Amino acid sequence: MRLSELAQRVGGSVAGDGARELLGVATLARAGATELSFFVNRRYRRQLADTAAGAVVLAPGDSGLFAGPRLIANNPYLAFARAAALLHPAPQLSPGIDPTARIHASARLGQGVQVQVQAVIEADAQLGDGVQIGAACYVGEGVVVGAGSRLAPRVTLLAGTQIGARCLIHPGAVLGADGFGLANDRGVWVKVPQLGRVVVGDDVEIGANTTIDRGALDDTVIGNGVKLDNLIQVAHGVHIGDHTAIAACVGISGSTVIGRHCVIAGGVGFVGHLHICDHVTVTGMSMVTRSITRPGVYSGIPAEEARGWRRNVSRFHQLDELARRLLRLERSPKDAHDE
Amino acid sequence: MRLSELAQRVGGSVAGDGARELLGVATLARAGATELSFFVNRRYRRQLADTAAGAVVLAPGDSGLFAGPRLIANNPYLAFARAAALLHPAPQLSPGIDPTARIHASARLGQGVQVQVQAVIEADAQLGDGVQIGAACYVGEGVVVGAGSRLAPRVTLLAGTQIGARCLIHPGAVLGADGFGLANDRGVWVKVPQLGRVVVGDDVEIGANTTIDRGALDDTVIGNGVKLDNLIQVAHGVHIGDHTAIAACVGISGSTVIGRHCVIAGGVGFVGHLHICDHVTVTGMSMVTRSITRPGVYSGIPAEEARGWRRNVSRFHQLDELARRLLRLERSPKDAHDE
Amino acid sequence: MRLSELAQRVGGSVAGDGARELLGVATLARAGATELSFFVNRRYRRQLADTAAGAVVLAPGDSGLFAGPRLIANNPYLAFARAAALLHPAPQLSPGIDPTARIHASARLGQGVQVQVQAVIEADAQLGDGVQIGAACYVGEGVVVGAGSRLAPRVTLLAGTQIGARCLIHPGAVLGADGFGLANDRGVWVKVPQLGRVVVGDDVEIGANTTIDRGALDDTVIGNGVKLDNLIQVAHGVHIGDHTAIAACVGISGSTVIGRHCVIAGGVGFVGHLHICDHVTVTGMSMVTRSITRPGVYSGIPAEEARGWRRNVSRFHQLDELARRLLRLERSPKDAHDE
Repeated sequence: MRLSELAQRVGGSVAGDGARELLGVATLARAGATELSFFVNRRYRRQLADTAAGAVVLAPGDSGLFAGPRLIANNPYLAFARAAALLHPAPQLSPGIDPTARIHASARLGQGVQVQVQAVIEADAQLGDGVQIGAACYVGEGVVVGAGSRLAPRVTLLAGTQIGARCLIHPGAVLGADGFGLANDRGVWVKVPQLGRVVVGDDVEIGANTTIDRGALDDTVIGNGVKLDNLIQVAHGVHIGDHTAIAACVGISGSTVIGRHCVIAGGVGFVGHLHICDHVTVTGMSMVTRSITRPGVYSGIPAEEARGWRRNVSRFHQLDELARRLLRLERSPKDAHDE
Repeated sequence: MRLSELAQRVGGSVAGDGARELLGVATLARAGATELSFFVNRRYRRQLADTAAGAVVLAPGDSGLFAGPRLIANNPYLAFARAAALLHPAPQLSPGIDPTARIHASARLGQGVQVQVQAVIEADAQLGDGVQIGAACYVGEGVVVGAGSRLAPRVTLLAGTQIGARCLIHPGAVLGADGFGLANDRGVWVKVPQLGRVVVGDDVEIGANTTIDRGALDDTVIGNGVKLDNLIQVAHGVHIGDHTAIAACVGISGSTVIGRHCVIAGGVGFVGHLHICDHVTVTGMSMVTRSITRPGVYSGIPAEEARGWRRNVSRFHQLDELARRLLRLERSPKDAHDE
Repeated sequence: MRLSELAQRVGGSVAGDGARELLGVATLARAGATELSFFVNRRYRRQLADTAAGAVVLAPGDSGLFAGPRLIANNPYLAFARAAALLHPAPQLSPGIDPTARIHASARLGQGVQVQVQAVIEADAQLGDGVQIGAACYVGEGVVVGAGSRLAPRVTLLAGTQIGARCLIHPGAVLGADGFGLANDRGVWVKVPQLGRVVVGDDVEIGANTTIDRGALDDTVIGNGVKLDNLIQVAHGVHIGDHTAIAACVGISGSTVIGRHCVIAGGVGFVGHLHICDHVTVTGMSMVTRSITRPGVYSGIPAEEARGWRRNVSRFHQLDELARRLLRLERSPKDAHDE
């Protein structure tokens, strides 16, 4: 595809040779004459100078840093993402049911559904048009998968789980296992029946080996456009608002509600029954112990507004020195200011 | 079921209309006239006032907060758990072997066993009476599963694993993988054979994608009544005492022994070779680096008794301010007390 | 096997009865007269005194602590690991393809390959000589598995993944799922195509339910001799250097490069785009937020050199007391030194 056509389709302008033919995408370091690359991080400035890329996507303000053909966009990473999808389209689905797949007679399948080898579809499941069920997936009783959604191999959707349209779920993800509900009878744990479902919106991506438990009474709800990375734990009754992105290894305890357009970095933990408002960012490995009512960036264990946390952390690294200075003052307060 | 009968069966008393017919359970916010709800958290007091529930389970001291039919119990959550199990009984098992399941000729199956689609049962495995093996489970050589235990779809029990009676294991759990045993030969890691087993007691629940490694020499042991949430790592040679509950994303390093009736919150880490006594609670995302010999609540990185931790954490949030005050004192100690 | 033969084969010397016949290995506490045990941790000195083991592996300096037959080695744990492998050889592979396995016609299989029940091998996959594919494994299109590598049951290798020789991958591991690449279009996340692969060297071990994502553009690379424990997240574009060992529950963010011969303890998190040099040790539950250019031991949140971290942590536990002492000084600086 020519650079000029690409620019038009992803929403950008061209500087330099718009007729440049591009066949794929690559990093600045590896791209060749038929490949498109991108530049967003100033740390890679030297690589930009040295690149052999056929064209580079960059921001208007960086246009002067590169002499070759450019695709100039206000959000270069977004333009690059779209260009990559155009140059590397996902392989076309070949509809059909593998003979080793086990599909219950009462399941309803839309048009153009693909069910791969050894997948299991239980009673009363519904697969929308164009759904792809990967090898060895398990789709439980009454599960609904919306049109265009795709399950990679070995996804487990337990009974009653609802998946919206155009979702992508990666291997090993488990949706609908029982929440961790226990009552204590003089030292012995008694299971609280877990009667809710997992309900996932449209355009959601769920990472490998992530677990989303069914609600205890009400449902566990994942909003539209939510993106979940790998190895995340979403407990029973959690709600995640639309267009929130959560990185790997996050744990969200029961009944916590996370707002829309939040960004949760890796390894963060949330205690249960919190309300996090929209537009909150939590930095990596923080522990959120209280509800958050004001948009912003939060950090730490327990999490506080990130500015304060950073100051306190930098003081923490001086803590031994601070303690020694305090001791010196205590011993000889009159002289301390002379040092 | 009538409220009066329910109260009798779960161990509580009735106030108001004991003839109220109840068909299910629901939250205060959603329950209708034929549904039972419960009240234990004072934060939901408004919802209690507004509920349309047919009856509510609550503690004797809260009985005055609700005018409708009540099921009064000293442990209302426990009574509710039991009522929910009575009103929503688990679907009856239909025994039988799915024709796609692969069962080795030397495996021994008890009465009323169910083996679902595409499950694999290897040589010399033993399944007790009433065991349910979910779709696509892998039951390795010589594995023993006790009577009444239930494996959800896609559980992996590697060779030699022993499971007690009435256990419930969720999808993606892996029991019996090799422990992480390595010796170092001038920079190159040499595998230490992992020769022990995983031995699980009775009435244990194991969450989705949790991993429990086999012992290096001795067994890894999970006591009776232990409840493990999702995405937990239990390393080789760990022992978990009876009736201990562990929330999601906890990691327990090799050979650590956790006592009975402990409660470990989410995201906690234990280093190896520790001994944790009975009746210890560890709060979320703590790191336990030393053995604990006294029952109590522990917190922090590294974990200490929670009272001290909370004080120090609150000081941490003043740390930048403390450092400034110290500097001011150093500069002008005589005047500091005048501010 | 006789102790003398064992010593010769693992590289050690004998003290005492070299004709002692040994059939297996066990802990000091459990070993009997035909079993070999080992002693490396001084905490187990009493067990050494009381052991009924037929022979014990120990260091030259500890030889005097035990009167029975000894295998003396400079690295006793390594010698024990080798002895255990000799006394408990892995069961011999029986080559062959289970009739329920699904192997694409275009896949190429070496000599002596074993493919177990219900495994799936997709188009153009290549399995080297002596490869073992466990029950219900999924080997995607174009995957290469090197000679002598072994996949335990239920491993998922997505399209294009490359595995070297003599690797061992445990159940539930997922290699080659999409990296978490997202661009933001006015609040809505747009997927960035993930076009790289996962490339794993020789002699690598990968733990249960660990996830290694494919690179966005370049590959995610795991070096030779790397050992990964369970439930680890390796994001897109990460490189892990040869002979690095990483314990459970670690998360490594995108494009971070970890050097060779590093040791990463459990629960550690790395932010993205870091460079960690060779021979770095990171202690448990640390968060690495900056590149590390000097070999050594690092700890903390954020990680710093461990010596400083330990001092500051010990001060942290005095923090409330320090704050009170500061307040006292402020109130009465002149008297503080009299206390």
